[in-house]
Amino acid sequence: MKRLLLLGILLITAFASQAQDSLMIRKFFDEALVNGQCYENLRYLCKNVGSRLSGSAGAQKSVDWSKKLMDGYGFDKVYLQEVMVPHWVRGAKEQGYIIDGNKRIPVAIAALGMSVATPKAGITANVIEVQSLKELETLGEAAIKGKIVFFNRAFDPRFIETGAAYGGAGDQRFAGPATAAKYGAAGVIVRSLTEALDDYPHTGATGYDPKGINIPAAAISTIAANKLSTMLKMRKLPLIKFYFKQNCQHLPDAKSYNVVGEITGSKNPNKFITVGGHLDSWDLAEGAHDDGTGVMQSVEVLRIFKATGYRPKNSVRAVFFMNEENGHKGGIKYAELAAANKEEHIAAIETDEGGFTPRGFSFANATPAMQKDINKNWKKLFEPYEADRLVAGGGGTDIGPLKETVPSVMLIGFRPDSQRYFDIHHTPNDVFENVNKRELELGAGAISALIYLIDQHGL
Amino acid sequence: MKRLLLLGILLITAFASQAQDSLMIRKFFDEALVNGQCYENLRYLCKNVGSRLSGSAGAQKSVDWSKKLMDGYGFDKVYLQEVMVPHWVRGAKEQGYIIDGNKRIPVAIAALGMSVATPKAGITANVIEVQSLKELETLGEAAIKGKIVFFNRAFDPRFIETGAAYGGAGDQRFAGPATAAKYGAAGVIVRSLTEALDDYPHTGATGYDPKGINIPAAAISTIAANKLSTMLKMRKLPLIKFYFKQNCQHLPDAKSYNVVGEITGSKNPNKFITVGGHLDSWDLAEGAHDDGTGVMQSVEVLRIFKATGYRPKNSVRAVFFMNEENGHKGGIKYAELAAANKEEHIAAIETDEGGFTPRGFSFANATPAMQKDINKNWKKLFEPYEADRLVAGGGGTDIGPLKETVPSVMLIGFRPDSQRYFDIHHTPNDVFENVNKRELELGAGAISALIYLIDQHGL
Repeated sequence: MKRLLLLGILLITAFASQAQDSLMIRKFFDEALVNGQCYENLRYLCKNVGSRLSGSAGAQKSVDWSKKLMDGYGFDKVYLQEVMVPHWVRGAKEQGYIIDGNKRIPVAIAALGMSVATPKAGITANVIEVQSLKELETLGEAAIKGKIVFFNRAFDPRFIETGAAYGGAGDQRFAGPATAAKYGAAGVIVRSLTEALDDYPHTGATGYDPKGINIPAAAISTIAANKLSTMLKMRKLPLIKFYFKQNCQHLPDAKSYNVVGEITGSKNPNKFITVGGHLDSWDLAEGAHDDGTGVMQSVEVLRIFKATGYRPKNSVRAVFFMNEENGHKGGIKYAELAAANKEEHIAAIETDEGGFTPRGFSFANATPAMQKDINKNWKKLFEPYEADRLVAGGGGTDIGPLKETVPSVMLIGFRPDSQRYFDIHHTPNDVFENVNKRELELGAGAISALIYLIDQHGL
Repeated sequence: MKRLLLLGILLITAFASQAQDSLMIRKFFDEALVNGQCYENLRYLCKNVGSRLSGSAGAQKSVDWSKKLMDGYGFDKVYLQEVMVPHWVRGAKEQGYIIDGNKRIPVAIAALGMSVATPKAGITANVIEVQSLKELETLGEAAIKGKIVFFNRAFDPRFIETGAAYGGAGDQRFAGPATAAKYGAAGVIVRSLTEALDDYPHTGATGYDPKGINIPAAAISTIAANKLSTMLKMRKLPLIKFYFKQNCQHLPDAKSYNVVGEITGSKNPNKFITVGGHLDSWDLAEGAHDDGTGVMQSVEVLRIFKATGYRPKNSVRAVFFMNEENGHKGGIKYAELAAANKEEHIAAIETDEGGFTPRGFSFANATPAMQKDINKNWKKLFEPYEADRLVAGGGGTDIGPLKETVPSVMLIGFRPDSQRYFDIHHTPNDVFENVNKRELELGAGAISALIYLIDQHGL
């Protein structure tokens, strides 16, 4: 009898807790949708600050403004974390031509981030088209030496989430130039990492082998890539050549900052839940979806907690990481300081896949049993908001290092709808106008809900 | 022992069937994503046909082209269903001003579809702002007579699906003018049915009381509505007036057509599964999301079945309905002919909520037990495509009448992500450029999958 009574009490408590959670989550969403500020904050960041690649004046301006924004919200703590970052500059706009006998056909290219420049006169060379890094190995030095290697493997459209297609084609940009250099290539052009057929070169960082030779590397638009590929197939003699010239430079590392805002936990001030995105962005656009939306959602979570009167038990931090795009130095610094300050970290959530309609979250290091529990306990709470895909999967680039220094942390990725992201990713088209207000706000609501649940119930 | 064996065989058969279903669905999505034609077909409809309001030359052009498109695909039957439709024309562009003493402030307005014109000189009158139809009743004739009624109730942003917000504000446009006329109003302006703060008037049909007086009615942009509302609150004397002039006309009903393509069922040629959208569109834009995407997805389903070699057991029809926007005559005609021809209809699926990422389907007349079964049997099959919200809800305007004439039919609505739809709905911004290729194609894949499952397993 006593046992039954106890069970009854437990059940009633569980139901009451679910009802309470459901009410609080509704409050967060209402605040995001009715009084949301992330959209107007994003407008300011895009239109009044603009592009903000690490080391640039824009990056410094974004740090100053972000600090002021957080100060204005009256969080318990607002501060900067100093970090040295690479300072790469594009220089004058690149030029690229397909050379067909006497004809020069201009094409849209952009240096890959961290690439070296070409010689001042540019590079002119025969082109060898390949589909994969592996193909370079098969071809060998004899076929590659002195040529421009043209990586042209397209996105596989069959992946339902476009991030998987990006992952499937991305090695060409990340590692293609370093690999081609080993076989004596003069330069590299890489098909833009997008399924869209457009005339934007999609930039993004490449990584050189520290011991290898650095050869210039550029992204080429998908339209130009198709044209070049067709010409290579059709025209045997005279051979098609390619010319490109780029003017980028590595300047000495620069001082920059992560921007951190915090609501200190009422019960566990030294236990942390982090939510963040990256403040830096590529130089060609406004960095709206990548990742203005992420930082503005992160600070919005703290604003929503304050506005709804929710006082978290654990400390909740919004972190605007610096240098995600070409070095990850901000994420590494945050992890170092967490360890040095002996902070306990419960969870870190990264929002860096665009400000689109939320679909759910991916948990990077939950055991299958935890993943099952998370779904059992929380899926129903996210269902009314259609953000209930709580799946295994990646966390994110900026929070990754935290797992190394504070192994107990759970890494979580915010997962919005992925269909439009790579249409604009790393292009001049990544502008404020391509962000939808409601989609952005729903994301802020969903992240607030998840952090609340973790704060209340742990993981 | 025998019983166990039988159970075993049944279980194995069930698993084999699920595996087979899963493979077929993957095939449909691959075909949609790799060889999809709906995006290029939509481009043609938007750019080479353009707007196509019932009775217009554009509507006739769209019928001719659609028939040719279906003929080209070599379906078993392609034909037109003649139907008489209203022929309303906007005439010269509307003019609207807020009059503040000597100042005339131009504002963006557009006649509501089916509205009457103003007198040639326009209407100038005092304005009374109301939030609801009910408020008119409270105010009574004394307060309303001779004035322009300004309906200004905004979308409620707290609804997660924007269709619910549209439903919540829509009576102002649908029934506001007829109701205001009863109290002697001179004219009506209605806040555009959108959450977006923009300067487009969002048109759309209004319905008059057949026995009442028809007064002119226009949509006003949300930016202008906010301005007018603020001025009304701030300025007491001299009173704010409003002027508008519109030149629309009702011409005699015109002959038009539904366009129908069919793959005849291999086993049950007289049992039908219909998939459709509407071919007509408002005169102000290209009718891309409303509803070019819907018709192009519908024909794509049949193309996908042919391309993948899937021969349905029941007849599958793609129907391009005429006159959804201002009369529903095409839907009514389709239902009449279905009854007259003694057709059996298993299900009808409507896609008229935009060509956005699919989220699932709503079943209009499933019992709770059926709804549960549908989820139990099919939800898992849609999960990999993130289109697995199989919920109770509306079917659609064009398929609605079929339920009256063939009561056994199941009505189903295709449910894409709803966040962006009302930003562009019924505005000049409803253009091809605002449709995403992959989002459109994923929808075609999802609808193909559902029709396949209904064809194989019934409902």
